[in-house]
Amino acid sequence: MRYSKIPDETIRRLPIYLRGLFLASKEGATSLSSTNLSKFIGINPCQIRKDFSYFGYLGVRGSGYNIEKLLKELKSILKITVVQKAALVGVGNLGSAILSFPGFEMYGLNIAAAFDVNPQKIGKKKNNVKIEDVSKLWILKKKKIHLAILAVPTETAQSITNKLVKAGVKGILNFSSCYLSVPKKVKVITTDIAMELARLPYYISAG
Amino acid sequence: MRYSKIPDETIRRLPIYLRGLFLASKEGATSLSSTNLSKFIGINPCQIRKDFSYFGYLGVRGSGYNIEKLLKELKSILKITVVQKAALVGVGNLGSAILSFPGFEMYGLNIAAAFDVNPQKIGKKKNNVKIEDVSKLWILKKKKIHLAILAVPTETAQSITNKLVKAGVKGILNFSSCYLSVPKKVKVITTDIAMELARLPYYISAG
Repeated sequence: MRYSKIPDETIRRLPIYLRGLFLASKEGATSLSSTNLSKFIGINPCQIRKDFSYFGYLGVRGSGYNIEKLLKELKSILKITVVQKAALVGVGNLGSAILSFPGFEMYGLNIAAAFDVNPQKIGKKKNNVKIEDVSKLWILKKKKIHLAILAVPTETAQSITNKLVKAGVKGILNFSSCYLSVPKKVKVITTDIAMELARLPYYISAG
Repeated sequence: MRYSKIPDETIRRLPIYLRGLFLASKEGATSLSSTNLSKFIGINPCQIRKDFSYFGYLGVRGSGYNIEKLLKELKSILKITVVQKAALVGVGNLGSAILSFPGFEMYGLNIAAAFDVNPQKIGKKKNNVKIEDVSKLWILKKKKIHLAILAVPTETAQSITNKLVKAGVKGILNFSSCYLSVPKKVKVITTDIAMELARLPYYISAG
């Protein structure tokens, strides 16, 4: 595989680059130096150049990176050239924020299904997505949706994960505060909305 | 300064380690090898050992890292040994999810103030935090709150940022889809709830 040597930590940064380039292009830029990209995203220029060199992408000295080409390349590596469908489980506050987040398209992602346990939510539509009964997770197999976002309470996270795996889900973004046990072929990324905030005090005290 | 040589990318990972160790300790573990920590958080063991070596923290071969000591050390580096207060601006779906998120304490953080523009929300309490009128951001100076989370529409993000800076805020976690212009002494971390999802297709197609 062409890109098999890219370190995980570089892959972790690619969506950040994607987002930075996307914002820069929205502001009218067509090319960007690593120094200017750095200002957009807060990752230092050496790291950016090193990351891009993993997939042989070298800017032109003096004129920087061609944004359009680089966006295409990053999407190709992340395998989001074709829009990927994802399901959301749990339409509470966080789930609702996810459903109404306008930025998924930028990442080549589309929330195509949503599930909740609350009868008052089931059947309703949010952002053109109909909320289904969580007991119907099996329809993900029929819909060929292989990605899921888990925004449910910790207590039910594992049992829902088991059902997602059974329905053919291969990648889970986990917002609940627990470790999920899954078969080896399934990739889980666990995150929360506070994690990034925890880096800020380091910088403000240092400055 | 003792820790001044820690790379930004290591700092970026420290909250992830903090969270992994916290979850492991909640499950009853008192020590953890880099291999097991790796399973919890999805960062490879070599990277973990390399990161910890920056602050001179070396595990004991065979018995791994002492979780309690390591948590203390990480909090000390991140300067969250003493709880840091933060303000939330924007109590929509995402803001509400942030206000009701129970995990801030784990990171030594506390949402101590909230602001919104909607008269129907102003004056109400959520998770013991009273929602104030966004025109009153100046009270942050009086309250000595130097951190802010921005969960407002893109159109108002910059003008609110200006007011936050004027009120003495030194660190901003920005959830809106735009670049914020701030004085040099202010640190901005821009993120969104979709970014992590964009890494998943890479792994599921590869597997």
